[in-house]
Amino acid sequence: MTPKEAAEFLNTHDRYLILTHVRPDGDTIGCAAGLCRALRLAGKQAYVLENPEATSLFTPYLEGLLAPQGYEPETVVAVDMAARGLFPDNAKQYLEWVDLAIDHHPSQEFYAKHTCLDATRAACGELMYEIVQHLGAITPEMGEALYVAVSTDCGCFVYSNTTPATHRVAAALMETGFDPYPVNRRHFRTKSFRRLKIEGMLAAGMELRDGGETALVFLTLDMIAQVGAEERDVEDISSFVGQVAGVKNGVTLRELSPGVCKLSLRTEPGDLNASAVCAILGGGGHAAAAGATVEGTMAQVREAVLEAIEKVRQETGRA
Amino acid sequence: MTPKEAAEFLNTHDRYLILTHVRPDGDTIGCAAGLCRALRLAGKQAYVLENPEATSLFTPYLEGLLAPQGYEPETVVAVDMAARGLFPDNAKQYLEWVDLAIDHHPSQEFYAKHTCLDATRAACGELMYEIVQHLGAITPEMGEALYVAVSTDCGCFVYSNTTPATHRVAAALMETGFDPYPVNRRHFRTKSFRRLKIEGMLAAGMELRDGGETALVFLTLDMIAQVGAEERDVEDISSFVGQVAGVKNGVTLRELSPGVCKLSLRTEPGDLNASAVCAILGGGGHAAAAGATVEGTMAQVREAVLEAIEKVRQETGRA
Repeated sequence: MTPKEAAEFLNTHDRYLILTHVRPDGDTIGCAAGLCRALRLAGKQAYVLENPEATSLFTPYLEGLLAPQGYEPETVVAVDMAARGLFPDNAKQYLEWVDLAIDHHPSQEFYAKHTCLDATRAACGELMYEIVQHLGAITPEMGEALYVAVSTDCGCFVYSNTTPATHRVAAALMETGFDPYPVNRRHFRTKSFRRLKIEGMLAAGMELRDGGETALVFLTLDMIAQVGAEERDVEDISSFVGQVAGVKNGVTLRELSPGVCKLSLRTEPGDLNASAVCAILGGGGHAAAAGATVEGTMAQVREAVLEAIEKVRQETGRA
Repeated sequence: MTPKEAAEFLNTHDRYLILTHVRPDGDTIGCAAGLCRALRLAGKQAYVLENPEATSLFTPYLEGLLAPQGYEPETVVAVDMAARGLFPDNAKQYLEWVDLAIDHHPSQEFYAKHTCLDATRAACGELMYEIVQHLGAITPEMGEALYVAVSTDCGCFVYSNTTPATHRVAAALMETGFDPYPVNRRHFRTKSFRRLKIEGMLAAGMELRDGGETALVFLTLDMIAQVGAEERDVEDISSFVGQVAGVKNGVTLRELSPGVCKLSLRTEPGDLNASAVCAILGGGGHAAAAGATVEGTMAQVREAVLEAIEKVRQETGRA
């Protein structure tokens, strides 16, 4: 379906329930909130299914939109959900009943009756903007929700998925009249005190090798306990090491429990194959980002990782 | 002058020398590089005056564009330079001879024969894009230089100066064909190893007060020495403390020499008046960002700052 056809579909149905994916991010929540408000403005009944994993960073956008107990939908829409495996537990009853999926993932599984997919979009929010444009006016609240969707999925226009179209949608959304700075501050300029402490500890213990091309950081259970960090304080912590100037290979070792460590490896394209390194240690992933869960103390796993990197380097002729 | 008139001026003159401001940033350097290339493409002779303070983050954009010894210009253009006080020493010979100033600062002093000013622009690069459009095609190299100008001046579309027009110019510049991701990575996703160590130390020593609304960080000479940090490693370090979730008042104390500390205070609009606090300590600035240089040890200056904050709070009825 094109965005226009999706809008026509939405105009001719009613009693909507909107689904979001597991480990919900700004794109799925922002799209759900924006679409729900657009449908209501078009005179429809519409709710978002509660997502038990939504954190306080995103739940405010769903205020007043969550489906009440016993709500019986006629039409089910999934947003930013590529695969059946991404349905939260409480959404699994709709696995065989999604009327329309709106998505931007090339890995979309086409589980829905109708699918509106544009894999050239940095965010599902970009596509959703096209769709809700056909439904009517865009209020500031809708604009804000969709701006959150678009901006968070491209790291505020930094990631390589950002296109000219991403910027143009952002411009149009800003013109709906919400105040973008508090949104930007909230999502891109704020860290918890505990997160900063953890990052400080990682920096203090950072190990540079290979003339600065390889960096290792170590996140121990003791550090987590010392800071009183929660899971959200260490979210995406494996991207921390990659910001060091000159580093091509970023290794993050996290102690999951005594004697078990999680390895995350991020590498530059064309340099070290992260997937090959992690395969040696029983894990896997992509060439530029891979991981493995390895038994052993931090020191033992560190040794094993360095050996695996060395082995892959020798095999690929880069000793 | 409108952008179109500025372009006409540029089309009818020749032998250009372009000036950039002291402590050059991405906006002044990117504008100079973009304009210089545009003038050359239009068949003009054009050079940028070397800026002795330009750091390695920006000098690559000026490669091949710097004026040779003894170059005698006919037309002098200043970019992103609001005031006479911002001329670098080697540019002061042109203080009374600027033919055209292109700028976006409301504080523009109108020191030039002609001025093309648009204070609604987030970056001078936005305005420069309008001007060079009238001069002819925009090459990828020009596009990249102007993208650096635009994106760095709005913190990659995060700061409150970002407007829909900023995003639209970014979109148009991306379409000139350069690869934006390495540029974004270089300017917005990279920190030196030493910077990360310094930030780690600041986080470790951070003091939270007033239920987390006030945060203090302490940068000592000892920390600088321990890390081997250079000045560029601590550039804009006073913005570090402001990213802590919930903090309204961010205090950065930096030991300049034994017995002398520099205070930087950032506050939220409507809360504490930073300028009033710093005035008590012999400094000044704006309501939301001010500073002072204070004699005393770090501990003494910390006490003095806390007292000054308390005093301003009591005076404004917020004890």
